Amino acid sequence: MPVYEVEQKYPVADVAALEARLAGVAAGWHGVVEQADRYFGHPSRDFAATDEALRLRRTDDGVWITWKGPRLDASAKTRREIELPLAEAAVPASPPATLDRWTDLLEALGFRRVREVAKRRRLATVAWDGVLIEVAIDHVAGLGDFVEFELQADAAGIALAATRVESLARHLGCTCPEPRSYLEMLLTQA
Amino acid sequence: MPVYEVEQKYPVADVAALEARLAGVAAGWHGVVEQADRYFGHPSRDFAATDEALRLRRTDDGVWITWKGPRLDASAKTRREIELPLAEAAVPASPPATLDRWTDLLEALGFRRVREVAKRRRLATVAWDGVLIEVAIDHVAGLGDFVEFELQADAAGIALAATRVESLARHLGCTCPEPRSYLEMLLTQA
Repeated sequence: MPVYEVEQKYPVADVAALEARLAGVAAGWHGVVEQADRYFGHPSRDFAATDEALRLRRTDDGVWITWKGPRLDASAKTRREIELPLAEAAVPASPPATLDRWTDLLEALGFRRVREVAKRRRLATVAWDGVLIEVAIDHVAGLGDFVEFELQADAAGIALAATRVESLARHLGCTCPEPRSYLEMLLTQA
Repeated sequence: MPVYEVEQKYPVADVAALEARLAGVAAGWHGVVEQADRYFGHPSRDFAATDEALRLRRTDDGVWITWKGPRLDASAKTRREIELPLAEAAVPASPPATLDRWTDLLEALGFRRVREVAKRRRLATVAWDGVLIEVAIDHVAGLGDFVEFELQADAAGIALAATRVESLARHLGCTCPEPRSYLEMLLTQA
């Protein structure tokens, strides 16, 4: 069954104020992670035109590969996503070395390195309208602070998930969604 | 440093006779493995023309992804190879389910399933001319029995590795090398 990621992102001018509002809805904090994402272009598709993305993500815990399909929906960012864990490809285990071996493989297949996106992500969960919504406060190198809300859904549940995400965002005072990915924002800046 | 695989393959009419000759060079046997390889075509390159291959390999021990670059050399099959282990992508761990998740990812990126190659491989090592040469006796579904000799080399060592592989093959009575991959042989048959 395809899994869709319904997510919405907002710029944050005042992180402390947002944290206070999250406390007001009893957000449960569960960790901080540094994520370094290496994005790739496709050998024959223009991912900017097809609205897809392929990345290798490195954290302290390991390395993942992620494909994001085209957004299905203009308001909330709903897209099909396939994310798979990569085994350590170096001895001794080293996420940077594994990332480099995978970059070699993707480049051999004609994918091209586009850009890296580095962020510090703080994760929380909020119980809202009967479901648990994932909340991430991101500090993105070169871009600043954002908050992202996310729910996973199957095809039949996308509309309801988007309604729930928007309702929580409004309640927290987030009113001006940012439709672009961090990668797109960085490429636009350049 | 790029790693090259110098390998040569021969059809085997009489497996018992080959085993007797391997005993004569004190081959050390070290296991039997069932390998199921799923080969893919590239979204925009004709791998038959570029002489590359991309496959997912499943054994009882796990799943790997392998890219093989073009053969550099007509006599021994010398090519650049990148092989990386894949982490289990299913809970509970299931190599077939991991293979299917990776197939989904490759298909989302425009790769196409071409064909599966299944074989039972018996592995041995032979000390020859001061190095250890890997020997595999393969029973390939739909094709029959083959023996493959393999040495890894860096760029400077390719010619010497090819000479060593050919010398052992001649000593064992293997005289008519098969330049095609199992995949190519199966596709030619079809």
